[in-house]
Amino acid sequence: MKVQGRAMRSVWAEPEGTVGIIDQTHLPHALVTPRLTTLAEAAHAIRAMRVRGAPLIGVVAAYGVCLALREDTSDAALTHACQTLQATRPTAVNLAWALEGLRRVLQPLPPAERLAAAWAHAAALADEDVAINRAIGEHGLGLLREAWARKGRQGPLNVLTHCNAGWLATVDWGTALAPLYLAHDEGLPLHVWVDETRPRNQGASLTAWELGQHGVPHTVIADNVGGHLMQHGQVDLCIVGTDRTTARGDVANKIGTYLKALAAKDNGVPFYVALPSPTIDWTIHDGVRDIPIEQRDGREVTDVSGRLPDGALATVRVTPEGSPVANYGFDVTPARLVTALVTERGVCAASEEGLLSLFPERRAAKGTGT
Amino acid sequence: MKVQGRAMRSVWAEPEGTVGIIDQTHLPHALVTPRLTTLAEAAHAIRAMRVRGAPLIGVVAAYGVCLALREDTSDAALTHACQTLQATRPTAVNLAWALEGLRRVLQPLPPAERLAAAWAHAAALADEDVAINRAIGEHGLGLLREAWARKGRQGPLNVLTHCNAGWLATVDWGTALAPLYLAHDEGLPLHVWVDETRPRNQGASLTAWELGQHGVPHTVIADNVGGHLMQHGQVDLCIVGTDRTTARGDVANKIGTYLKALAAKDNGVPFYVALPSPTIDWTIHDGVRDIPIEQRDGREVTDVSGRLPDGALATVRVTPEGSPVANYGFDVTPARLVTALVTERGVCAASEEGLLSLFPERRAAKGTGT
Repeated sequence: MKVQGRAMRSVWAEPEGTVGIIDQTHLPHALVTPRLTTLAEAAHAIRAMRVRGAPLIGVVAAYGVCLALREDTSDAALTHACQTLQATRPTAVNLAWALEGLRRVLQPLPPAERLAAAWAHAAALADEDVAINRAIGEHGLGLLREAWARKGRQGPLNVLTHCNAGWLATVDWGTALAPLYLAHDEGLPLHVWVDETRPRNQGASLTAWELGQHGVPHTVIADNVGGHLMQHGQVDLCIVGTDRTTARGDVANKIGTYLKALAAKDNGVPFYVALPSPTIDWTIHDGVRDIPIEQRDGREVTDVSGRLPDGALATVRVTPEGSPVANYGFDVTPARLVTALVTERGVCAASEEGLLSLFPERRAAKGTGT
Repeated sequence: MKVQGRAMRSVWAEPEGTVGIIDQTHLPHALVTPRLTTLAEAAHAIRAMRVRGAPLIGVVAAYGVCLALREDTSDAALTHACQTLQATRPTAVNLAWALEGLRRVLQPLPPAERLAAAWAHAAALADEDVAINRAIGEHGLGLLREAWARKGRQGPLNVLTHCNAGWLATVDWGTALAPLYLAHDEGLPLHVWVDETRPRNQGASLTAWELGQHGVPHTVIADNVGGHLMQHGQVDLCIVGTDRTTARGDVANKIGTYLKALAAKDNGVPFYVALPSPTIDWTIHDGVRDIPIEQRDGREVTDVSGRLPDGALATVRVTPEGSPVANYGFDVTPARLVTALVTERGVCAASEEGLLSLFPERRAAKGTGT
């Protein structure tokens, strides 16, 4: 998507064999685009959350292997690189999946051929992510056009989103935001309500920045506001991403998503969830019961980071000393509150039948008990 | 309630004829208790939100009139004092009501008697607020005891609250927190989930501080978390305050209250609203339709204040330059989501019938069309 008027991705290979990223820890206050030149730098970029978002860190890890192989293409170096990168975010499924795929391609090759193959594979992984998100965008665009038609093509189409399911979490386009970029680009008059998304403020810092840079009209709101807006007809539809989707269409997404889905249901506002199919966990059905919810560092709640009047970045503490905090990262929105799922294969009901209609190969898998 | 082990109110008269307050703009980081000595200082304390909360600012305004009369007890001085104090928060109903009541008492008196009468009236106003809140507390305590019995008197009773409806918003006890203080004091093992309450963070800064100082176990959470906790049986009941209650029991309270009420309904968690009867607006029925919602300064959303590591207070900006924000102060929770209202006269259903059962004199007023 566009940044300062020109198209950018969140990660890219440079001609001289290094890797460029946007250091997201500086957003939204400054656009900093360091070049990664070594395995250690790539690992640090993931660990320090300079890059975040499941699809993006998988791709950065693949590029990290390329950087390692620039120095040493031996089996030992390949193993070390994969282990080092996996250890940066041990629970990230995409990261493991990207590294495992890369190792499967590279291991059988003669060492002399590995570096070129690694660059090609990493680039393919990045392009595949872009293609999936673009497809999600096209399918979601149909929903936006319908909503716009229902509204009589009057006034802006007001969309509410939570957290950052935008291009900064992927390589380009994003998941939930992909349909919005396509709609904006084709001239549909959009306005996006951006939940700030405490405690990490990914909405206020990343989604608002993305939308602003691409020129999409938007307004940042506290997470508490969406219900009020829906009561007053100020939201035409909601669209969010998901970190994990169950076989019957429950979705685990950033904490607070469930509250917005309840408000959407209470006010007859469509609530869409956009997802690349790898986030579907076909082994789990009841999300509230079976998806474990990670508890994160309490400092995300006690402390808030931002820019001081003099431009320096700083962190201030908002809670009293001695007051405990709890920091749950995600919640589960039951399928009954989800109007439809938007995948790279199309739009379906948030139900087992709905998902199987788009992924019939899973019906066969289910039939054979695998 | 207790602060550093000793009982305090949020405002008090000093023997030498000045007025003590807790400067709430320093909370939760420091306990600063300035003495107000002049009308100008009292007006500034209200305007700068050193004191806030409808009941409290009414009482501080009354004391402000006392400070003005210390210098001049003439009619002109009385009028000037009332006008100056009213202008500090022009839309505050309690402030107008307190000043009007005071003026009605003082105006007919000979100037020489006004100062003593003003002190007596202000003290009575403060004591009346304490008595009302204590009564709300007693009635709410019954609900907590019942919930505790339903839980088999096992484990802590987990209560969720939003914003600050505690003693810092009143003279003592608070409204929603009054039952919690009474329950804690009688040994009921409470644990309170404290919504941080963006954008002004009254939960994280004031409610957490209040509860911590009084020794009530509590945990601060982002506003996004309550739904997840309720899905997992971690909330036994919710209790919040209200700024305005309609004749049929809809409640306008801090933005985000509606979302918690939806989650409570979805999970079978009782949702109580505590209120002194003056907040009932008998002329309004449909809260969502008829209560105008104030939009506040956007800087409350873009900027967050807190304590730097060196102890200094600072404000950091979290949103991108150029991203618009919207800041709605309140939302309306429809009566259908409210399990019961807790008033100084007792507990009733959130309905016209429920309210009239506690306030039968209104039935007569309704019958005669007034």
